[in-house]
Amino acid sequence: MGSSFGHLFRITTFGESHGGGIGVIIDGCPPLLEITPAEIQRELDRRKPGQSKITTPRQEDDRCEILSGLFEGKTLGTPIMILVKNRDARSQDYSEMATKFRPSHADATYQAKYGIRNYQGGGRASARETIGRVAAGAIAKKVLKQFAHTEILAYVTRIKDISAQIDPSQVTLEQVESNIVRCPDPIVAEEMIKAIETVRREGNSLGGVIECVARNVPVGLGEPVFDKLEADLAKAILSLPATKGFEIGSGFAGTYLTGKEHNDEFYMEGDRIRTVTNRSGGIQGGISNGEDIILRAAFKPTATILQEQQTVSVTGETTTLTARGRHDPCVLPRAVPMVEAMVALVLCDHFLRQRALNPDFC
Amino acid sequence: MGSSFGHLFRITTFGESHGGGIGVIIDGCPPLLEITPAEIQRELDRRKPGQSKITTPRQEDDRCEILSGLFEGKTLGTPIMILVKNRDARSQDYSEMATKFRPSHADATYQAKYGIRNYQGGGRASARETIGRVAAGAIAKKVLKQFAHTEILAYVTRIKDISAQIDPSQVTLEQVESNIVRCPDPIVAEEMIKAIETVRREGNSLGGVIECVARNVPVGLGEPVFDKLEADLAKAILSLPATKGFEIGSGFAGTYLTGKEHNDEFYMEGDRIRTVTNRSGGIQGGISNGEDIILRAAFKPTATILQEQQTVSVTGETTTLTARGRHDPCVLPRAVPMVEAMVALVLCDHFLRQRALNPDFC
Amino acid sequence: MGSSFGHLFRITTFGESHGGGIGVIIDGCPPLLEITPAEIQRELDRRKPGQSKITTPRQEDDRCEILSGLFEGKTLGTPIMILVKNRDARSQDYSEMATKFRPSHADATYQAKYGIRNYQGGGRASARETIGRVAAGAIAKKVLKQFAHTEILAYVTRIKDISAQIDPSQVTLEQVESNIVRCPDPIVAEEMIKAIETVRREGNSLGGVIECVARNVPVGLGEPVFDKLEADLAKAILSLPATKGFEIGSGFAGTYLTGKEHNDEFYMEGDRIRTVTNRSGGIQGGISNGEDIILRAAFKPTATILQEQQTVSVTGETTTLTARGRHDPCVLPRAVPMVEAMVALVLCDHFLRQRALNPDFC
Amino acid sequence: MGSSFGHLFRITTFGESHGGGIGVIIDGCPPLLEITPAEIQRELDRRKPGQSKITTPRQEDDRCEILSGLFEGKTLGTPIMILVKNRDARSQDYSEMATKFRPSHADATYQAKYGIRNYQGGGRASARETIGRVAAGAIAKKVLKQFAHTEILAYVTRIKDISAQIDPSQVTLEQVESNIVRCPDPIVAEEMIKAIETVRREGNSLGGVIECVARNVPVGLGEPVFDKLEADLAKAILSLPATKGFEIGSGFAGTYLTGKEHNDEFYMEGDRIRTVTNRSGGIQGGISNGEDIILRAAFKPTATILQEQQTVSVTGETTTLTARGRHDPCVLPRAVPMVEAMVALVLCDHFLRQRALNPDFC
Repeated sequence: MGSSFGHLFRITTFGESHGGGIGVIIDGCPPLLEITPAEIQRELDRRKPGQSKITTPRQEDDRCEILSGLFEGKTLGTPIMILVKNRDARSQDYSEMATKFRPSHADATYQAKYGIRNYQGGGRASARETIGRVAAGAIAKKVLKQFAHTEILAYVTRIKDISAQIDPSQVTLEQVESNIVRCPDPIVAEEMIKAIETVRREGNSLGGVIECVARNVPVGLGEPVFDKLEADLAKAILSLPATKGFEIGSGFAGTYLTGKEHNDEFYMEGDRIRTVTNRSGGIQGGISNGEDIILRAAFKPTATILQEQQTVSVTGETTTLTARGRHDPCVLPRAVPMVEAMVALVLCDHFLRQRALNPDFC
Repeated sequence: MGSSFGHLFRITTFGESHGGGIGVIIDGCPPLLEITPAEIQRELDRRKPGQSKITTPRQEDDRCEILSGLFEGKTLGTPIMILVKNRDARSQDYSEMATKFRPSHADATYQAKYGIRNYQGGGRASARETIGRVAAGAIAKKVLKQFAHTEILAYVTRIKDISAQIDPSQVTLEQVESNIVRCPDPIVAEEMIKAIETVRREGNSLGGVIECVARNVPVGLGEPVFDKLEADLAKAILSLPATKGFEIGSGFAGTYLTGKEHNDEFYMEGDRIRTVTNRSGGIQGGISNGEDIILRAAFKPTATILQEQQTVSVTGETTTLTARGRHDPCVLPRAVPMVEAMVALVLCDHFLRQRALNPDFC
Repeated sequence: MGSSFGHLFRITTFGESHGGGIGVIIDGCPPLLEITPAEIQRELDRRKPGQSKITTPRQEDDRCEILSGLFEGKTLGTPIMILVKNRDARSQDYSEMATKFRPSHADATYQAKYGIRNYQGGGRASARETIGRVAAGAIAKKVLKQFAHTEILAYVTRIKDISAQIDPSQVTLEQVESNIVRCPDPIVAEEMIKAIETVRREGNSLGGVIECVARNVPVGLGEPVFDKLEADLAKAILSLPATKGFEIGSGFAGTYLTGKEHNDEFYMEGDRIRTVTNRSGGIQGGISNGEDIILRAAFKPTATILQEQQTVSVTGETTTLTARGRHDPCVLPRAVPMVEAMVALVLCDHFLRQRALNPDFC
Repeated sequence: MGSSFGHLFRITTFGESHGGGIGVIIDGCPPLLEITPAEIQRELDRRKPGQSKITTPRQEDDRCEILSGLFEGKTLGTPIMILVKNRDARSQDYSEMATKFRPSHADATYQAKYGIRNYQGGGRASARETIGRVAAGAIAKKVLKQFAHTEILAYVTRIKDISAQIDPSQVTLEQVESNIVRCPDPIVAEEMIKAIETVRREGNSLGGVIECVARNVPVGLGEPVFDKLEADLAKAILSLPATKGFEIGSGFAGTYLTGKEHNDEFYMEGDRIRTVTNRSGGIQGGISNGEDIILRAAFKPTATILQEQQTVSVTGETTTLTARGRHDPCVLPRAVPMVEAMVALVLCDHFLRQRALNPDFC
């Protein structure tokens, strides 16, 4: 259990890194939406390995097939199944993993929980699993764009201590995609790329922060008290591999302010209620207020490093491990489309939930 | 929708701040557990208003009644209903709220989403709603303690920039409860209390950070890929009022380390796999590894302040608002039992989920 | 677990026959609906014991209180909690039940499943639990009436072998309520009442069939393939105490026809697609087609009889039991509002689900 | 929405009759279960078209592939994805369906609900969708057999008015599979086959009743009050195409008895509580009592007949339709494995739910 996400726009993913394939079923997508495989492929290509010198050289086309739910180019309202077959399976790289647990990986906990694991490439715990999410996210984005003109954009704002100041209200997809680290500030991006190349050569790895903005979000999304919009967003982000933290709006920094400094005062812009500042991050009381939703996700440095580490074997002996195989020295550039996908899935689900409550809300 | 939480140990809360009462139904609690109202009351008393000079002076006994699910002092396996009636309703304090939206509160978004709101005391968005959570959390704690000796403890580690260094593996309930701010370091606690008293006098407010540790957590809790333990914990925390951020283990700080520095190397302690460090925060790949689970929650400064603020009226005019009524200048001391409750609910739910998969796991 | 029903209009019931009270939380009710306690009470009064000479003489006012979710007479969009306190608890009647299992009751299975049971009046397995359903059903009916002019009506069509032919398209609430057995044919109703009075005197009991019609159901309700409308209706009906069977449309009788005889041919009535016959019972492929939804529920004869029966004790000895206490010799008259409530809950839930998919459908 | 079933052993199906493929994801299957594609294929072969002279001649191998969730022949505890590609797509047979609605089919309601439909072979409403259920049911059966020695067997007891008396406690799979109509009484089976062949020649169709028995069901399955075992079974059965009715135990016939005649008296068999009769059908109060679970499903005569029928066109004109294509003159022989699969899915799900509550129950 645990492979489904969403209440009305509900996805279920399947697949291990080195099994027959990876994919997703999307149940609850509204009918009559025009979808092409190319739109989904575009997002998968942003996620796929081997896309640049700072990602893993593992070569996978990650070519998607849509096996159900479409008819003459339009969604049927029935479950959409998207499949990506696995191809480049160099299982021999993983022979040592069969017997040793990689530090800060899921090997030991999967073994403990299930009594078995597919040790090839991390099995189900591999970030390859996110293919299904990114594919589903492409459709969620389309629903949001079509029904509400909502736009979702993520980007890297910090790698280790190299950080960029990005204006979430102005950043564009073109800026994000203009460099391989997906930081919209080209000068900082260069520094980040250099830092990643350095740790790659050392067999080490880096982490950092991805920020995500959602613009033109309808007022009224979110279902207090447990399915508050920020609660579902937090779950969405923390369900991604390698995440260690989540912030909405002012986040942890906001705790250094007083209430007087922190509060977002209201004003009228025509007949629309606006806030002067946006420390709330576009959500108040668990419900979107129409301002930009702004969140940040902390990604730890990649657990797989090519240096010797102390570990234990499956049979309980102390040993050492020097990982081989092909790995990302920094997951953030490829995690950008994953963050967008998860945010899109949450917003799309809540969009449909709010439409059930009030069909005229948007 | 959105008032339920959990998959097998599932709670549903109800109630507005100034309606007939507040409470919770707990469905899925194992039978034959001994429960007394006193055990639940003890947790509610830690949450209740008027408990100290740094909380709101609103006086509520918050006396709980258990209306179903118990027989001769034991749980029946049927839904447990716990009710707390509302008493101290000074509705006149809220007359201005009927017509003006409080900045950084849920007033405006509730009005927009539902087209109606109970403006008395914040209605459903009031932190009074957490009474049901804390009551249910008391039972979840008991389940965890009885079946797995798991212990959950939260405490304040920072108020604004006044911060304490607490050892999560050693901190005790007695230390937490030894002062009214619930910071286990008595010297830092004094500073925090003074700071809160100061802002209270100024009609201002403060935020900060609560840390929570869960000790003796069985290995194997968490259901990848979406119901990872940290994902459900993040949702649990962000569903609490006034939260803006969540961290597990190394959190945002961990992103400043390299993989080599960050990884938790393994060693054997008898036949148990342990980690030398615990930057993972007790969870790897979404599954508990038996180390202490450590998380942190960011709470913003209380939105209600007694200074004049710019706002808008229900009818769309720009106006100002100077809140009256009785409010907490800092929510953190009373939020400590809420954090514990939410963590207990998540762990208890995942404990039952894992038992379904493997009845011998613990 | 198992005390909740519905996906978007979701109810959770609580309470044992002889505990502190019985009730329900309704989560997902649209806001701004006008509700009075009197509307709910009216349905509860149709269900309550002691209402006629052919029901149990147990006297319960079953007076409902609405503790949350309403403000100035309108729904808030927040959870609605409805409580009915238990009053007439003659626990001494149940002393023998503490030690002996009543045949064809839930005593033995509850004891086996949970290792404990509240033996007073059947505890959670008592039909008193349906108070929460009937209260919630009153609100579901109102939603359906207001948004879609849908009307739901159940009635007794057979007691043992005494059966009435009722035209579902014409029957009225007044006809149903014109006699105490709730059979709209007054002559057959008299026979039914006599038969029930006869078995009551003998300490025996009767079963029969309730039919239910839903008129003005919007086209498009139902979510294939598992949440087909008839599937959710079947679950709803079989979740009621004492039910043994469910039919939609032609039901079991339809299996005696050939396809040519059974099919519902189409014709146009203005711009509306109609069927010449309605053996489908208003549902085709799991989706409502706008014709009357017609279903039937089989209720077994009441398990509690006042004659000696062979049974076993809690400690595993063979023994006999002669029930005392106050019981219904036939559950059907009081089950009529329960059936209506369950049908209303299913339709209301699917109404909201369809509105999420297509806000303009109705 | 509506393509998932189950709470802990949860399946999600996808696929249209003439799309790229049909299949299922099973989430929540316990790890370390040995599964071979052959075991799944064996059940699919009982369901597949073209298997005998009384089923549709459409030729589909229905060859299954397991794309995830297995490793070295054992379940991983991760989602199991099973895919069957569509092959024999004679779409030209369906050209008339593009413009005309088939009576008593789902064509018109799908069009109304979604505004679009895949008219080829019934699209999502085709019984081909049940491939996923039967595949998943094969695994559920294995779980039940391995953990609880539970055995599930369905069989045809009536075609139109040709009925067999079968002893559910004695019937064997060999008897069921000994003839092509799957009625364990070989003499009655012959009559049934002849009747089906006759209507096939006439372009007409027949319906009937399938009975299903589950033996060695552990005591304690079922979650009152809404997820009673019979309620979930009723939903499972009514979610199958062409079903119109459901009975548990004595069913509708039981309503002709008095309570004295109907009740199942208890006796001890060693330390096990047994019932003298089994009118309850193995379930009391929503919970299994260890006796055989016995249920019956009514299947209507196949809607597709090769005779001219009155209908309407997509554009709202009255017209006639004479179906072509290849169809089953009676769905029951192929529905037998579908019924078994649905019953297995319900029992397996409740088995895991009960194990969460009480790990030692079985």
